[in-house]
Amino acid sequence: MSVRNKEVQPIPVLMTAHRILFLVLDGIGDRPCPSLGDMTPLKAAETPVLDQLATAGVCGIMDTIAPGIRPGSDTAHLSLLGYDPYTCYTGRGPLEAEGSGIHMEPGMIGFRANYATLDSSGKIGDRRAGRIHDTAVLSNAVERGVDLSEYGVKVSFRSGAGHRAALAFKGEGLSHCVSSNDPKSEGKAPLEIRPLEESPAAMKTSRALAEFIQQSGEILGTHPINKERAAAGEKQANIILVRGAGEMGRLEPFSERYGMRGAVISAASLITGIGRVVGLDSIPVQGITGSVNTNLEGKVRAATGALETYPFLLMNIKGADESGHDGKPEQKRDFIHRIDAALAPLSDLDDTILVVCGDHSTPCSVKDHSADPVPVLIHGEGVRRDRVTRFAETDCAEGGLSRISGPSLLPIALDLVNRSKKFGA
Amino acid sequence: MSVRNKEVQPIPVLMTAHRILFLVLDGIGDRPCPSLGDMTPLKAAETPVLDQLATAGVCGIMDTIAPGIRPGSDTAHLSLLGYDPYTCYTGRGPLEAEGSGIHMEPGMIGFRANYATLDSSGKIGDRRAGRIHDTAVLSNAVERGVDLSEYGVKVSFRSGAGHRAALAFKGEGLSHCVSSNDPKSEGKAPLEIRPLEESPAAMKTSRALAEFIQQSGEILGTHPINKERAAAGEKQANIILVRGAGEMGRLEPFSERYGMRGAVISAASLITGIGRVVGLDSIPVQGITGSVNTNLEGKVRAATGALETYPFLLMNIKGADESGHDGKPEQKRDFIHRIDAALAPLSDLDDTILVVCGDHSTPCSVKDHSADPVPVLIHGEGVRRDRVTRFAETDCAEGGLSRISGPSLLPIALDLVNRSKKFGA
Repeated sequence: MSVRNKEVQPIPVLMTAHRILFLVLDGIGDRPCPSLGDMTPLKAAETPVLDQLATAGVCGIMDTIAPGIRPGSDTAHLSLLGYDPYTCYTGRGPLEAEGSGIHMEPGMIGFRANYATLDSSGKIGDRRAGRIHDTAVLSNAVERGVDLSEYGVKVSFRSGAGHRAALAFKGEGLSHCVSSNDPKSEGKAPLEIRPLEESPAAMKTSRALAEFIQQSGEILGTHPINKERAAAGEKQANIILVRGAGEMGRLEPFSERYGMRGAVISAASLITGIGRVVGLDSIPVQGITGSVNTNLEGKVRAATGALETYPFLLMNIKGADESGHDGKPEQKRDFIHRIDAALAPLSDLDDTILVVCGDHSTPCSVKDHSADPVPVLIHGEGVRRDRVTRFAETDCAEGGLSRISGPSLLPIALDLVNRSKKFGA
Repeated sequence: MSVRNKEVQPIPVLMTAHRILFLVLDGIGDRPCPSLGDMTPLKAAETPVLDQLATAGVCGIMDTIAPGIRPGSDTAHLSLLGYDPYTCYTGRGPLEAEGSGIHMEPGMIGFRANYATLDSSGKIGDRRAGRIHDTAVLSNAVERGVDLSEYGVKVSFRSGAGHRAALAFKGEGLSHCVSSNDPKSEGKAPLEIRPLEESPAAMKTSRALAEFIQQSGEILGTHPINKERAAAGEKQANIILVRGAGEMGRLEPFSERYGMRGAVISAASLITGIGRVVGLDSIPVQGITGSVNTNLEGKVRAATGALETYPFLLMNIKGADESGHDGKPEQKRDFIHRIDAALAPLSDLDDTILVVCGDHSTPCSVKDHSADPVPVLIHGEGVRRDRVTRFAETDCAEGGLSRISGPSLLPIALDLVNRSKKFGA
């Protein structure tokens, strides 16, 4: 299948492709799983499409950040886009805020937020407020109602998926060095917000954040939606838990750095947020959930469509990561099988360097990210073909790419589309 | 064999191991040896235990410092412990001094030392004073007798193995930029000590070191032990040759850096010294020599015992390096065979990530260290299994680790025992 309109004119024989598709299979890497006969879910899955791509392409393993460094999804994606997380990342908040639609400017402080339930005893009864969703009305009320002008702080507050939201402070002399009020488990009182260093900026931000939590709690506590929930016996969304404070850095726009426009397809606001902060557009797709029930076929259609417009596209498929966090090897294997089937339209994408990789491993035995290298394959015009015929962890380690690092991946792909600059003469 | 006491309680099924054993086979790597049919000694040796570990584990090759960099044993071990030798290493002296029992503080200058024989003609007759040993009485006499208070320098001098010793200077404004008096071959006069830069510190240290050599020579020349040796027709230990000057740096303790206690098992004072400077305990073992006649079985028993107490253990086995330096491929092959047999108790060590590697190659054809990468294998719970079935240089190069660098090894192992910190969210 061609993604270009074949009626226009025949495609000339190209010596190099012109477009790059990064297909990031979130958390795809794993460790041997006893219940899968000591295979990894990727090794145990039937993956004819990925195997065909591996056979026709070049494979390797990749340390998204560096060997032995356990990446977050945020730092991993920054690294894959060629931005050094050690210099541009102070916390997940600004990326979540950007993903929720708040425009983050350098110096602004962003936070991840959850709607939660504060019991009458003063303890957190539910960290997700009964898995509340569609909270836009509440978020608008909070954003309009909270007044931090005493601190010179302008507040932005937006709903994310489900019980999630994002908060941003804009003002002079703010710091990300402030603690969270999230006790991380239910039945405990919310924690007091504290400055994490003795700077005036941290102390001011800490006081402003405590004030935000106070005022927002009052607004939510008396909001009609919560009264309705209480009347219906549902858990109220009457407190906001914040965490992941980070200062928005200055990131050179992707288009300036690499000379090409790009876009992101992801159900996760974190990933679209990372895209936004470097100037990558976000392509919406109906029915994507960031879970194993996502609309994979719709995503792949959107990707082939987006490549008509954007020479660079990053598509993240999240479900395998979720299965890893949940410690479910069979579910992870089966979802990988579903991913593979949905990828068929990508297997003969023309004029495109297709890169398939993970952002990190999420071993079912660890139920969290690990530093185990991820498999990577590169497919398309000009790619050297190695002997690897299977897209799995140790198979790919025998491939022609050997072991590479995350920040190397985009430069390698750019070279394959003839966009690398010659250094020297 | 379990290293835990099976009488206490059954071991739970662990999702990750909790302990790390680094087994460093010193100088194990080699180049093809004509007398071994162009195999390396490791390839030519029968190594069923190492091969079983390789088969069940993941293999690779490793540049202990970086590709093409020929490591010393000292810089290699610092690198394997995750300390950058380029920033913390100025010479071997401080490590030898620490290994000999001198407590080195940051800013102190350490030197390697040899007892040697100065002929009546003023030339070095024997750089090892007839391979003198048990020199503690002489060293005490030197340490007590030499007075460098004129330079504000406090002298420590301790015996090492055989003719070896270590010297340390403590005082203000000292430098490691001073030359050696060792002419490096016999029949030549000792060299004059010179400052290696024009700083006041180097000039002062140079004068103090020359004074040390002068005073210690006088003390040794009239010592009863040397009179007895002369009477018996033995070579006198009447001059101290110094080399390897280095300034003790500030090294973050291993336990603070990695959150775990650790220990070292090695016959070489250099290796135990490296351990000491980063706060690793030294486990003594009877009958270990650092040579091919060492007590391998005792070492392995000590290792399994030490793992009851220490979650991190580095064990160095030195003999193969010696055979490489001596240019003896058959001896190296045979010693590797002996190592392999002795390792049997480690092959089913539970709850442990076992890492087997070299610190550098010592090719018999070079008779010195080379930059050829060393083989490495990692065995234990959670490790991805590759197709390598033989622990040898080029076999391991086909493994699932691909090619890694020395400073990556400990982070990789820490991730496997779930002690790596997540960077990001």
